[in-house]
Amino acid sequence: MKIVIALGGNAIIKKNEKQTYSNLINNIKKTCKQIVPIIKNNKVLITHGNGSEIGYLALQNEIAKSQVPAMPLDVLGAESQALIGYIFEEQLRNVLRENKIKNPVATLITQTLVNKNDKAFRNPTKPIGPFYNKKQALELKRKGFHVIEDAGRGYRRVVPSPQPIKIIESEIIKNLISKKIIVIAAGGGGIPVYLEKNELHGIEAVIDKDLASQVLANDIKAELLLILTGVEYVYLNYLKKNQKLIRKMNIKQAEQYLKEGHFLEGSMKPKIQAAINFIKNGGKKVIITNSENVMKALNNKAGTLISK
Amino acid sequence: MKIVIALGGNAIIKKNEKQTYSNLINNIKKTCKQIVPIIKNNKVLITHGNGSEIGYLALQNEIAKSQVPAMPLDVLGAESQALIGYIFEEQLRNVLRENKIKNPVATLITQTLVNKNDKAFRNPTKPIGPFYNKKQALELKRKGFHVIEDAGRGYRRVVPSPQPIKIIESEIIKNLISKKIIVIAAGGGGIPVYLEKNELHGIEAVIDKDLASQVLANDIKAELLLILTGVEYVYLNYLKKNQKLIRKMNIKQAEQYLKEGHFLEGSMKPKIQAAINFIKNGGKKVIITNSENVMKALNNKAGTLISK
Repeated sequence: MKIVIALGGNAIIKKNEKQTYSNLINNIKKTCKQIVPIIKNNKVLITHGNGSEIGYLALQNEIAKSQVPAMPLDVLGAESQALIGYIFEEQLRNVLRENKIKNPVATLITQTLVNKNDKAFRNPTKPIGPFYNKKQALELKRKGFHVIEDAGRGYRRVVPSPQPIKIIESEIIKNLISKKIIVIAAGGGGIPVYLEKNELHGIEAVIDKDLASQVLANDIKAELLLILTGVEYVYLNYLKKNQKLIRKMNIKQAEQYLKEGHFLEGSMKPKIQAAINFIKNGGKKVIITNSENVMKALNNKAGTLISK
Repeated sequence: MKIVIALGGNAIIKKNEKQTYSNLINNIKKTCKQIVPIIKNNKVLITHGNGSEIGYLALQNEIAKSQVPAMPLDVLGAESQALIGYIFEEQLRNVLRENKIKNPVATLITQTLVNKNDKAFRNPTKPIGPFYNKKQALELKRKGFHVIEDAGRGYRRVVPSPQPIKIIESEIIKNLISKKIIVIAAGGGGIPVYLEKNELHGIEAVIDKDLASQVLANDIKAELLLILTGVEYVYLNYLKKNQKLIRKMNIKQAEQYLKEGHFLEGSMKPKIQAAINFIKNGGKKVIITNSENVMKALNNKAGTLISK
């Protein structure tokens, strides 16, 4: 089976954990061990988030900018793909060797086409990087950045999160997957680029990684989209008294729940949207669960299954 | 013909030029236009240096380290591959589209195997990043960095530059090239990794990009290794009164000149060594020239040709 595994941020770094080299290696090694049984018998594409990493890179660029010219978000997106992709490929190669699985691994720098006129560019919503105080926030605003107040925790820079239209490298990725090469691609939703006068240009944004994974999964005609996140199940009335886990739903139910506002913006909502899009565009099924339960979920003993 | 084009640092950023996004784009676009005629009729792999970029990333990490955990050189090597590779792939796709050439482009994060006991780790020689004044140099030394004086131009940090043994992803790269996919790989000589107890680990070093390009060129059985640098020809007695350009030489002559000390350490010397290695390991010929004269050189009207 052709499977896209979309890894959430906590497969790479836990919330509130320091983003050190050794923490990255330890988390990623653990993730690799959890997903290696899937690789044994399937054709696998791995995608991943970059929310924490691109924020840190942006902060680094901001702090050092008097001595090192700061790079825009598209370049930082590329750098985050390499930071995570390199460690992931290395650790996965080690775990595969240990398990006597011979599939090679390729990590591709990936660009994602967006529309320059996407309304997201007029309404930036995705928070990245550190928290600022009011004075710093005003300074950033003067510099032309979008800044929002984040519920009592201070101010944060927000960036546009446009819809992914197409993965620029999808044909190459499809080709590699078909040879049972494990591909790591579309990290952080891919580097946002737009087409103007027949030329690609980078643009400052961060694309939702689940929506980009879905577009790529449909591009390469994957059968299963496996979204790994922090929770074992999707819930109705999440974190409320009447919270209720969902074992399976069809896309009609999913659309209904979405409309009723059960799913958190920037969290479960884009995953459910990605699931609906994937199946409407020819995908067979979507499983949403955490990485600890991935094998149980594949055997239909854990996780939330979404199908037609 | 299967060709490896190894691009020097000045194909990406000129000496003394500020490393801004727009300078990177302008230089890389120009380089793409210069090499696009080669792509039309050949199978092409592109490699590139990262000396300036990895130095800037290291400086950025150093400046910001109280707020953002600094990453080691292997991770920065990966990030430099993405920084350059992303812009290169984007600009190359644009130039190819303009020239109605349909070959796709793939940028691979690439690891290069080295020996942990390579003597280079006891004797760092490769300068990276910007020039420092004496005061800054002393401060860096206090922090434990190796710093050398660079012939009147100031001080620079130096890092180990071990011999490349094997490119980890060479089979995948060979596979892509055979399908006329243009591959950008082994940027900055590849991310240095070593094997211990059957596991790959990153190690802090910067591999010479010409030697790594040669190893990869032999791995994929390329016929021509095209080394593009700042000068049109290789010279004997370079920059001396009796300087003499070389139009062609065989590897016996090249070895003799090398022994006589005609070629600068860290500059022309590794290029000549790469040329000799390439031909000894089955390659047909090597051309060393600048990117302005690349087409003339392919028609044997410029550049230095090295063959058996």
